[in-house]
Amino acid sequence: MSAQHDSVRALRWSEEGLHVLDQRRLPLVFDYELCRSAGEVAKAIAEMKVRGAPAIGIAAAYGVVLAARKRYAQQPGNWRDAIEADLDFLARSRPTAVNLFWALDRMRAAMDRAGDAPVGHLLAEAIAIHEEDVAANRWMGDRGARYLAGAGGVLTHCNTGSLATGGYGTALGVIRSAWRATGLSVYATETRPWNQGARLTVWELNQDRIPATLIADSAAALLMKSGKVQWVIVGADRIAANGDTANKIGTYAHALAARHHGVGFMVVAPMSTVDWKTERGADIEIEERDGREFLPDTFAGPDSVIDAWNPVFDVTPAELIDVIVTERGVVEKPTHETMRQILRSPAQ
Amino acid sequence: MSAQHDSVRALRWSEEGLHVLDQRRLPLVFDYELCRSAGEVAKAIAEMKVRGAPAIGIAAAYGVVLAARKRYAQQPGNWRDAIEADLDFLARSRPTAVNLFWALDRMRAAMDRAGDAPVGHLLAEAIAIHEEDVAANRWMGDRGARYLAGAGGVLTHCNTGSLATGGYGTALGVIRSAWRATGLSVYATETRPWNQGARLTVWELNQDRIPATLIADSAAALLMKSGKVQWVIVGADRIAANGDTANKIGTYAHALAARHHGVGFMVVAPMSTVDWKTERGADIEIEERDGREFLPDTFAGPDSVIDAWNPVFDVTPAELIDVIVTERGVVEKPTHETMRQILRSPAQ
Repeated sequence: MSAQHDSVRALRWSEEGLHVLDQRRLPLVFDYELCRSAGEVAKAIAEMKVRGAPAIGIAAAYGVVLAARKRYAQQPGNWRDAIEADLDFLARSRPTAVNLFWALDRMRAAMDRAGDAPVGHLLAEAIAIHEEDVAANRWMGDRGARYLAGAGGVLTHCNTGSLATGGYGTALGVIRSAWRATGLSVYATETRPWNQGARLTVWELNQDRIPATLIADSAAALLMKSGKVQWVIVGADRIAANGDTANKIGTYAHALAARHHGVGFMVVAPMSTVDWKTERGADIEIEERDGREFLPDTFAGPDSVIDAWNPVFDVTPAELIDVIVTERGVVEKPTHETMRQILRSPAQ
Repeated sequence: MSAQHDSVRALRWSEEGLHVLDQRRLPLVFDYELCRSAGEVAKAIAEMKVRGAPAIGIAAAYGVVLAARKRYAQQPGNWRDAIEADLDFLARSRPTAVNLFWALDRMRAAMDRAGDAPVGHLLAEAIAIHEEDVAANRWMGDRGARYLAGAGGVLTHCNTGSLATGGYGTALGVIRSAWRATGLSVYATETRPWNQGARLTVWELNQDRIPATLIADSAAALLMKSGKVQWVIVGADRIAANGDTANKIGTYAHALAARHHGVGFMVVAPMSTVDWKTERGADIEIEERDGREFLPDTFAGPDSVIDAWNPVFDVTPAELIDVIVTERGVVEKPTHETMRQILRSPAQ
């Protein structure tokens, strides 16, 4: 594993439950928290101990296993009805990442096939979701890296690595693959306000001995102007049917700057991130979190006339995206039409 | 003063020396540090206890007074030669803000006229520089605010208020004037990596009871897309002869997003910020500070493969600027030619 520069895992399953690496405490503390119930998994998602659209989906799948184990033990004859409350609770943990709903739908379908030993069957499905995600990431990494031949440097935003997925990463998977091949320069934004880049991406890259340079989000346009990066590579929290992409707040500004400077803009995400029922980006619900997540405490009191606006994602329109990389293939210049073509291509 | 919503001062002169509000400790600690020598003033500038191009120039002017007092006391017949080392030291404190060099030049000219009582003469000149800056800001504030008639909201970047100037502010002066007139919504970026917005701008606005909303730098493009702001208003650290403007890192990205969304982009700066000897922005020296200013300590050790790139300013090309407001008048669609016209207009 370390030979492939991919040593970190956000989620580990054991018979006790789901071990969730508490990403809020990184890079200072490396510690797994054991979630023994669906409620604890939902809480870990809502509190952003686990984050990243694919990882949220995988965690939710394991959450369903924990729910099934409990409900089946309590009411073997009626567990299928009783578990719906757990599924609802998991579904409400974060609103934007469509992988969450995709994973719950897939687990629900598995329940329908579960038969007499549902818990083992559902665990096998959750593990499959997890392992398929890692395999998809490795394939996307190598496929996306082809675009980077000759690139001297790349910029990424937020954390899309092993911490955000089952392993290897989406955008960071492409960077991992490209770095192994050519040793290109890797730039990572801090990614305010939650600092996923400053706390997670560079931590993960440091663990895997992949050199990287941290920049303030605000320095991205100057970096592109300097000619030091040829591609901006990001993940996605939800991709609409026309290719419009919701991703971490700030992505949109980087896409505008990339287009202005002739820098390529790549989105890397598994098919589970594509929301075919959402026609365009304007229809995607954008999560707004409490402004006090970054408002200095000084201004949080009743006498203050200062507040904060904390949108977590923005939408990059498809026309600013040069290529979307999925495990079913790549979509250059995404539109409704080109997006539908990957549905017709064979699974890789 | 408070009736005008302008209660804060970064610099206060007394016979003991220059009292510098330590802006590194805001908003938690409100404390003035007494600088008794030019060396202490230069240190306060280099360490960013005082920052903001106009305030740096004013502080340097008072630094010259302190130097003259000491040198004249030591060597009344030869103080003019002895002081050159102090001027050099002050000039090296920050490289980008041209107001620093402008203020030193003006103090040097005052020395040439100083006669037998140089210290009093130089103090009068420093106070004049300080008072003229406040007067210029009030004029620019009211003049710039005319563009904001009908605007529902404005976004500003970094701190350009009383803390960054002699008082009232440049870009924040325009916002102060416009807010008094129409009560528009004020948005301020955090301004990573040094958080001038999150620590200083909203602190200053809170002191003056002007409501404001803090956003992550990365949220600026979404804010513009949302239609909540009609103008982005910023200051400048140096304006080239063609209108290209060096300002806090991130300004360039905001200008790109503003143009994309049809949001106006205004630069507010005194004439002392215009560097007529620099033809274009590409010729402006951009300060790069130590990456450890924002690299988490975890990654600063010898085993780390992570570093950080910390450019302090970027250059917004003139073609992205709708209007530059100075105390000599406004320049719409700045070019070499339109910029020269303000030199021919009468002082206000």
